[in-house]
Parts: sequence; structure tokens; C-alpha cells
Amino acid sequence: MARINPDRLLADLDQLRTFGATGTGVVRPSLSPIDMEARRWLVSRMRETGLEAHIDGVGNVIGRSPNPGPALAIGSHSDTQPRGGWLDGALGVIYGLEIARTLLENQVTAHLAVDPVSWVDEEGTFLSCLGSRSWCDVLDPQAEAAAKNTDGVSLQEALATAGLSDVPRERLASDRYLGYLEAHIEQGPYLEQEGLEIGVVTSIVGIRGCTVTFEGEQNHAGTTPMDRRKDAGVALFEYAFRIRERFQQLAGERTVWTIGRASLDPGAPSIIPGRAEMLLQFRDADDDRLGRMEQAADALAAEMTAQGPVEVRVERARGAITATVMDAHMQQVIADAAEHLVPGRWMRMPSAAGHDPMVISHHLPCAMLFIPSIGGISHDFAEDSRRGDIVVGCQVLADAAEAILLGAAAG
Amino acid sequence: MARINPDRLLADLDQLRTFGATGTGVVRPSLSPIDMEARRWLVSRMRETGLEAHIDGVGNVIGRSPNPGPALAIGSHSDTQPRGGWLDGALGVIYGLEIARTLLENQVTAHLAVDPVSWVDEEGTFLSCLGSRSWCDVLDPQAEAAAKNTDGVSLQEALATAGLSDVPRERLASDRYLGYLEAHIEQGPYLEQEGLEIGVVTSIVGIRGCTVTFEGEQNHAGTTPMDRRKDAGVALFEYAFRIRERFQQLAGERTVWTIGRASLDPGAPSIIPGRAEMLLQFRDADDDRLGRMEQAADALAAEMTAQGPVEVRVERARGAITATVMDAHMQQVIADAAEHLVPGRWMRMPSAAGHDPMVISHHLPCAMLFIPSIGGISHDFAEDSRRGDIVVGCQVLADAAEAILLGAAAG
Repeated sequence: MARINPDRLLADLDQLRTFGATGTGVVRPSLSPIDMEARRWLVSRMRETGLEAHIDGVGNVIGRSPNPGPALAIGSHSDTQPRGGWLDGALGVIYGLEIARTLLENQVTAHLAVDPVSWVDEEGTFLSCLGSRSWCDVLDPQAEAAAKNTDGVSLQEALATAGLSDVPRERLASDRYLGYLEAHIEQGPYLEQEGLEIGVVTSIVGIRGCTVTFEGEQNHAGTTPMDRRKDAGVALFEYAFRIRERFQQLAGERTVWTIGRASLDPGAPSIIPGRAEMLLQFRDADDDRLGRMEQAADALAAEMTAQGPVEVRVERARGAITATVMDAHMQQVIADAAEHLVPGRWMRMPSAAGHDPMVISHHLPCAMLFIPSIGGISHDFAEDSRRGDIVVGCQVLADAAEAILLGAAAG
Repeated sequence: MARINPDRLLADLDQLRTFGATGTGVVRPSLSPIDMEARRWLVSRMRETGLEAHIDGVGNVIGRSPNPGPALAIGSHSDTQPRGGWLDGALGVIYGLEIARTLLENQVTAHLAVDPVSWVDEEGTFLSCLGSRSWCDVLDPQAEAAAKNTDGVSLQEALATAGLSDVPRERLASDRYLGYLEAHIEQGPYLEQEGLEIGVVTSIVGIRGCTVTFEGEQNHAGTTPMDRRKDAGVALFEYAFRIRERFQQLAGERTVWTIGRASLDPGAPSIIPGRAEMLLQFRDADDDRLGRMEQAADALAAEMTAQGPVEVRVERARGAITATVMDAHMQQVIADAAEHLVPGRWMRMPSAAGHDPMVISHHLPCAMLFIPSIGGISHDFAEDSRRGDIVVGCQVLADAAEAILLGAAAG
């Protein structure tokens, strides 16, 4: 098997980290000047490797092996959360680059085709999985037209500022590709907890969300007796407290749910809130379970409305994501590669976070590999992984890519 | 007894309503151009009545009877909540004007001195009870220097814009005044519920507040298992739910409490809140009970912190207000006037809302009269009172003022 170059891998990760470095973290939001600078650097690194490479009209960096297919696309995203860690996305992108050049350099594998990629905006600064949606030609024109970042800058403006308005957008040529591989930090605690090196991703969990609104009656917080109040805030607190009990009954081992936002209106100390709102999100690998949780959210709202005095309504969030199953064959090849390199120190596991294969897997077989996150921390400046784990992960994915490509040639 | 002029009273209330009229409500925040316009109109109406009148350096409209004392000051505030009703404050101000001119017009009472006033910013757009604090010379210079409205405009800037920076501020001449009377809509449901016309205010309830903060750990809402979370939002919901049970145990018949604001940080659907905060306010006429409620808030925070995983802290809000007792003699005179005009259709009651007498009563005997609020609604565009009730209330207060002033002359 071709051996990756650990020093080169780590040096390129360190180099990518410098674009937008902020303390131990990175601030490199999609299509920002610093993101575009990093993408241009990636293109130049790919070209130095002997690949063709360019930034397409939506911001994707797409490398292309000089070899004919069948090829594997390997990558992730090189932009970050508003206050992101240094490995989220970056790890998978540099793995793609390292694996492409490792195979090209090695006599036995020099004829194999790996195309490294960096999708744009998986994190949803403007529109989540923007780049992979565009590549798969499933980008909704209305959603694209409406997309804005939290500063109110539209996607169109951001693309114009980045100089991409008139650049063509690359589409998936499905006759070239066997599949797409992505490596990522786990972003959770399980691998570290179990003392393992590699996670072979079985599926990406489904995500559902809803907005729960509470309509009461705004009034004076001094003069309105308790028994005459229609306090939307009190109803929100009760709903939040009670939905926890109900979800606990329905939850599986890895089910999670989160109330990430809650607000009372008008939000003044001396005014009884007349309106309140919360965002409730839940994730699981089992879509049926998510359906039962949705029903529980609806049922509690109906009960509370019937009981009064506040009307509770549940509205489904747009963009519910069904659980995505990874390709069984490619999963197995990664598992074999892991077992070969770190016997017994890998496991199969779902991904609790969303990733571009949620989009791509509808068009191309996909598989994912995880490496451990220190303390399970992610989406935070403190995010980190051990350098030894980073190297092992890349070698496992390189071995798997080689096996998949050689197997396809043999088949 | 001198008879007020109901048509004139109602016409002036309707006229004042036009300044900042918005639907059925009024938007006339303290020291805004429209508030200053209304104050200049008030000055002109007072002067037409034969009073001296001016706007002082903090924005108070102060009328002065041409008669020597002993005098009664009668009034309220003519500015409004951000989205206020048409009677909150305005009613008491026009009552002062109507009573002053009624007494001056009537031969038997023409020698009596009533000074109508409109204090500035009782509602706390910049600093609650700003005008009465200034008049009583108890305005804290630091609080004044720090005062800002929610748009970030400082009190100093607002006074400069209103052209008041170099205008002197009037102080209470305590040798002139027997006391201060204020009429107000009840802002609560009790009078209407009991079918009564007049409330004689016994005291203004004490108000205490606290900010409760929750310190957890921000993390990814997908990848962090439920049992490893330190979700500040979950702790906030639990605190809100449990403090309700504890306060219900401690509450008297008219105790009220409100969580008017709550926020989760950073407030994104896919991020576990690392920090959360709520404002908790409680009111009662019994300061000891308020103390026990404060202790309960502290105790729950300590219990939850001990239990983990989120740290809960309670910080007292500045500006706690102790319950304020109204002057017994003036209370009785108002009660007698009510009994004379609407026998059996009045009651004694505490004020659950704050008013300028909280400040003034430390320097001058104060009394207050309430008229019914339709549906108990206040601090809302829908606030209203029946015109017949408005007229009766003014006549009762006029009769009481006459009796107090004549009684003082006789004594």
C-alpha cells in the first residue's frame, strides 16, 4: 500500500490553519476574503501535485487527477463556523490532497484517479451544503436567491465580491466517479471514550426541527393578578420542561434534542410576555423515532392549548434531513483498512452531525471516516485532535481509496 | 363643591391623545419631539387658565397657581410607554389641569392653590421617575450620567435635543405644599370586577427583581450526548418551572411575579446554549414577603448549582423599591369624597404598579385615586376606560382637593 507523508500532511494542515487563525481557533467564513485566499492556496497546492484544479462559480475547489476514471472524489469543506476549530472540514480537505498526491507519487498506484475537493459552505453561513448541492445540481434557485449571512449580505453579493459571478459552476460527471469519501473529526466523545482510533460511519443522523410559538396576552407585570394572566413565557417554560420528560421516554441511546433559542416578547422586566417562541431540534439515525418525537411535540402543544390560557403551536422547520445511510461496500473497505492498520481499535458509528454526503449520497456512493476529537469538543476554538490520530486516519483512508480503486479496476 | 367641566376635561384628554396617536394607542416616549410638543401644549393650556407654567430643565411641566399656598400639587406624567395606552399618565395630568382651573373659576374656591404638574419619564425610558426625583432633589448624578434609552441615546443627548440643557431644574418648595395628589387608571381588573368606580390607594407595592444567570458549556447540538451536556437553557427552563411552585407557596392574595425576559446564548438552533439569563421580578405590599421570595430565589439557585451540571447565580437588580404607604388623612378625605359622590361604589386597594408618589412621598404627603380600567388592560394600545368613569374620578379628586385645601385653611 502507498504510504502517505505525515510531515507534509501536518504541514499543510498547519498552513491552512493560518488563514483566519484566531487564538487556537479559526474564523474563515464561507466566501469571505480569507476563505477565498485559502481556496486559492489550495488550488496552488493541488497544481504543484500535478493535478488540474480551479475554483468553480459557487466557490468549490475542485481538483482533477490527470488520470482517466473511474475516480474517487475525496474532500470536505475548507471554510469554518463563525468561531470554528482548526480541523472541522480542513482535515478532510487536506486528506483528499494528501491521498491524491500519495497515489500519484507511488509507482503501483500512479495510474489511479483521486480528485480532491473542498466544497463551499457546508456550515450554512449562507445555505448549508451549498457547494455539494450545486455540484449535484440540486440547488433550489429560490433558496439560493433568498440566502443571506447573519450580517444580511446576500449569497449573490458574496459571490460577486469573491469574483465568482461569471465563473461557471462545475457539475458532477457521474460517469467519472466511483464514489465520494470524506474524513472528519468525530466532534463527539465516543471514540476517545472507548480508546479507539477510527470511526467507520454507518449513517448520518436525521435532523428535524420545529418552531414552537406561544400566544398569550401582553399585560402589566404589576397590576395583572396571577390568575388572570395569559403569560406566554410561563407556557414556554412549562413546554420546555415537559417535552424533556416526553423525549426521554422516546429516546434511544444516541438520540439528542436541543432548545437552542428561546425568546419572550416584548422582553421587558415589567411586562408580561404576550408572545414567546423557541426552536426545538432533534436528531437520530432512526427516522421513525424522529417521527414519534415530532408527534410528541405536536401532542404536548395540543394538550396545553386545550388546557389554556396560552395557545401553543408547532411549526415544522424547513429542511428536515432524513437519515443518510453510507455505502455498505465502501464502509467495509474502510473497516478492513482500519482493522489492518489498527486492529481492534475502530468501531462503526453514526455521524451525529450533518456533512456533505447527506446531499452527495443521493447521486454517488459515499462513505465517511472519523478520527477522535479531544474531549469531544467541536464548533469551538478549543477543538483539537492528536497529531498521531490525524496521521493514522489519513493512512486508513488512503489504503481504503487504493483498495476501492484497485478493486474497481480488477472488477 | 365646585363642579368640574366634563366636556372640557374629555376634550383636553382627546387633544393630548393626538400627540403620538398610533391606532388606538399612543407612542410618546419621554423627551421625544412629540413628547416635547405635547408638553408645550400643556404649558399653553395652563397659561390660558391663568396659571404660570413652564417646562423645567429635566422636562417637567410645572404649573403654578397665582394664589399663595398652602397648595396641592396634582398631576402625573404625560409621556408614555414605547407602545402605550392613551390614559396611562395622561389622565392624571389633565385631572390636575381641570381641577386647578375649576377651583380658580369658582367663587368659593378661587383663592385655593392647585399647581398641576406633568413629571417626566415615570416610565423609565431613560430613568424611572426622573422628573419627580429631580423635583425632590434625590436624582443620583451617576445614574443620570449613565441613563440611556433602548436606542442607546443618553439622557444628556435627549435633554440637549429637547433644548433643555441650559434650563434650570425646579425643586420642591416644601413650604408651599400640603401634599401631592395623583389619579391614575387602575391598570388592573379589581375595580371592574367588583363593579366599583373609585379606588383609594393605600400603598404602592414594593418591587424587587433579580437577574438569574446560568453558566454551562456551549457545544455541538448533534454530537454531544445528552448525558454529557451542560445545557444552560435546560437549567433556565427548570429554574423557571420550579420557582413558580416555590413562589406559589409564599404568595399572598395579590402577590405577583414575572419572568419578563429570557435569553439563551448564542441562540442558534444547532448549538447547545453555554449561557442563559432571565429577569425575575416580584411585587407585594409586604416587604417581608418580598424578602422571603428573594431568599427562595437564592435557595433554588444554590440547590441547582450544588446538583450541577450548570452553575446558577442570582444577582439583585438595582433599584429595589420598598412598599410606599399613602398619607392616611388624605386617603380618608378621598374616601369621604367618593362615598359622597358614589356611595358604596369605592374601595381601598394597593397600587400594584409603580408611580411618582414612590419618590415624592418621602418628601411630601401623597395620596392616589384609581378609576377602572376596561378589562384590566394597560401598557397596551387596547388600554381604555369608560368616559363616565373618567368624569366621576375627576370630580371625586376635585372634591377631595377642595376639602384638603379648605380644611388646611380652617385648621
